[in-house]
Amino acid sequence: MSEAHRAAGSVTILTVSIQFQIEARSGRTRTGRLLTPHGEVETPVFMPVGTLASVKGVPQDILEELGVQILLGNTYHLYLRPGVEQVRKLGGLHRFMAWPRAILTDSGGFQVFSLNDLRRVTEEGVTFRSHLDGSSHFFSPESAMEAQIGLGADIIMAFDECTEYPADRERVRASMELTLRWAERSKKYFEEHKHEVPWNRGHVGTVALGCPRERSSSAGDHEVSARQEPAELCSAGQPRAAVSTCSESTQALFGIVQGGMDHQLRRESAERTIEIGFPGYAIGGLSVGEPRALTREIVESTLEHLPAEQPRYLMGVGTPEEIVEYANLGIDMMDCVLPTRAARHGLLFTSEGKISIKQARYAGDAAPLDPNCGCRVCQRYSRAYLRHLYASNEVLAQVLNTIHNLSFYLDTMQAVRHSVLLGKETGSSCVRSRPKP
Amino acid sequence: MSEAHRAAGSVTILTVSIQFQIEARSGRTRTGRLLTPHGEVETPVFMPVGTLASVKGVPQDILEELGVQILLGNTYHLYLRPGVEQVRKLGGLHRFMAWPRAILTDSGGFQVFSLNDLRRVTEEGVTFRSHLDGSSHFFSPESAMEAQIGLGADIIMAFDECTEYPADRERVRASMELTLRWAERSKKYFEEHKHEVPWNRGHVGTVALGCPRERSSSAGDHEVSARQEPAELCSAGQPRAAVSTCSESTQALFGIVQGGMDHQLRRESAERTIEIGFPGYAIGGLSVGEPRALTREIVESTLEHLPAEQPRYLMGVGTPEEIVEYANLGIDMMDCVLPTRAARHGLLFTSEGKISIKQARYAGDAAPLDPNCGCRVCQRYSRAYLRHLYASNEVLAQVLNTIHNLSFYLDTMQAVRHSVLLGKETGSSCVRSRPKP
Repeated sequence: MSEAHRAAGSVTILTVSIQFQIEARSGRTRTGRLLTPHGEVETPVFMPVGTLASVKGVPQDILEELGVQILLGNTYHLYLRPGVEQVRKLGGLHRFMAWPRAILTDSGGFQVFSLNDLRRVTEEGVTFRSHLDGSSHFFSPESAMEAQIGLGADIIMAFDECTEYPADRERVRASMELTLRWAERSKKYFEEHKHEVPWNRGHVGTVALGCPRERSSSAGDHEVSARQEPAELCSAGQPRAAVSTCSESTQALFGIVQGGMDHQLRRESAERTIEIGFPGYAIGGLSVGEPRALTREIVESTLEHLPAEQPRYLMGVGTPEEIVEYANLGIDMMDCVLPTRAARHGLLFTSEGKISIKQARYAGDAAPLDPNCGCRVCQRYSRAYLRHLYASNEVLAQVLNTIHNLSFYLDTMQAVRHSVLLGKETGSSCVRSRPKP
Repeated sequence: MSEAHRAAGSVTILTVSIQFQIEARSGRTRTGRLLTPHGEVETPVFMPVGTLASVKGVPQDILEELGVQILLGNTYHLYLRPGVEQVRKLGGLHRFMAWPRAILTDSGGFQVFSLNDLRRVTEEGVTFRSHLDGSSHFFSPESAMEAQIGLGADIIMAFDECTEYPADRERVRASMELTLRWAERSKKYFEEHKHEVPWNRGHVGTVALGCPRERSSSAGDHEVSARQEPAELCSAGQPRAAVSTCSESTQALFGIVQGGMDHQLRRESAERTIEIGFPGYAIGGLSVGEPRALTREIVESTLEHLPAEQPRYLMGVGTPEEIVEYANLGIDMMDCVLPTRAARHGLLFTSEGKISIKQARYAGDAAPLDPNCGCRVCQRYSRAYLRHLYASNEVLAQVLNTIHNLSFYLDTMQAVRHSVLLGKETGSSCVRSRPKP
């Protein structure tokens, strides 16, 4: 408890995790601010994937410059390398990777389920073999929570079963029920162990600056009195150890809605997950091979059953067009490997459509990659140069391509936020709640 | 001719290439300023190698931040990919790679001679096979000049034969004589074609700002009236096309001294190369397998015979200790793949010695790579993180390792410059010419 808080004698100290404030609505789209122990995130937000504590090829200060406010880390990968205990001993993921802003980790479930032949699911959890060396490992809701607490992301995910597609109704129900039981176990373990997050274990110098001001409980969860910008306090040029963390805060555990492509089961999954109670909810089990129209349908119908005032996270999507579409349905958070993975294959997203930079037609093209893009790549380099780097297997190709694609995704989300805010300013942002089907 | 120059009616316009001004001496060490059509270079200078128009993994703006004032490009590699004509049509190497500061290209000779079984040398030139696809190519002094003029670096190198080591005296003499004949042919072709540099062919917007002020010939070649900092005029944030070039300037062709490990032949090579006449001289044919003590001996004795007031470039060296040693002998320019190549293998240079970051001992090491280094890598990341990136084959490992190693090399040279300048200020910088042997 800082002196400032002590002085304010009437303030009740809460162990806050996240706070979510919706700022404006336009149709079903909404913009908001998600306060985490490591900074504020403007929503709707696209979260770049930093699988192994690195967004492949991009230094952290460039991510900051791009305006990345939250990164996603993969528990399965980090569990294998460098190992949770290693990260925990070094103060958690933020400090380990020198990233002062917010981080979300997945539960490892999705990656483990992707291993197909290398896994075995029981009530207790999942036994799987490492894709690296074939060694045998076991994830349960409890061990997945333990791992995510050790990694110390701001937002962590319940351990779920990602139902395969296609699957018959009985299989989807059974899988959904398993996910619900695992959600309860995840929450139970988390509640009992959340104080073990590395921020609270003396590994992190207690930097109270920039923490969200704890408020009396009567103020409501989604109202925030002060902006929190620890990222600014910890940018390059500051001392190395300046990853600031609110010493009194904990992580936030999100629940995951499953239920396959069945509207009724999605509804049931949503309602029973909400009954367990989480500060935010994810929609899982989509983008698993189903047609995009079906994805949209399930997203729409699931959103009907999620609390309007809490953050909603759609996992593993999508193309630039899709992330706009989902944001417009009322999704607040998304992640996808597409912009970073496509960049490594020379596939670049621009305001004029997709460009495969490897094509010979760009060899003499002096124009910028995207004439409407303000990113450092488009401001400096020509298509001819980017094509040369790619054709010559130069590492800089991956670096620059990734920077541009991320910039394009972040700009895309910013445009959504702006249009909602403009809508509000022009008076068209009244909440139009959609009639239930 | 700009209006400003027209107004100064009494000034004689010269087609300047480079100007070299020695600023201070301490012992045999000297600091200077090398003015090129693309900015000023403080000497002694280490030139990072950007083989294929990229310092592998490092964006150009980070090179600028590191203080890189001159890059080296490899003609052989650029000739194969993307091809000289492609670069020429795009306005030359500076514009192609969006690098506004100085560039030096080698002649392609050294790479071609490294091909061993894939080449055949005649009086006319060298026939060689591409390491990429085995296709047959031919370099002569004339075609090597044509390629380097097309690439448009600020400083280009005569086509020479790099004598193998060991070699008997007859072989060394014959090779040296060939290099001398090729030097004459290189100069002849260059003088007849230097106006063809892409800067003067309408590909580059004529940006006269920042050009070295042309002076009347009586003012002396190594005296400079005005600082030139086009790099500052063209840094990130400026419009893409802002690579500024002095429209009235040309490239500078340097001669190369050969002569193997024979003091007498080195002297003869130096004297006869000087007779041909170049604005700068390189010492070639070293670092080819000979013991380091012998390298130093040959460098020392060759330097005796090079003009004191012109830049001296030692090709292809060395370790951090060696570049200090050679600078202290009076070398002004050096290049080497060591810092960048070692970085890719996890070998990092620090003020406390070399570190192999792949070692398990660093897995839990929260300290910065080099506590005495101010680079963006050491300021932000821990050894544990760098070790994790390397062990996980993350591309960011190469990016960060290269940035640090380059920073270490550049800082090393800056320390040499500072110590000479300090020496001068404290009155100890009188020129102590070394007695001839």
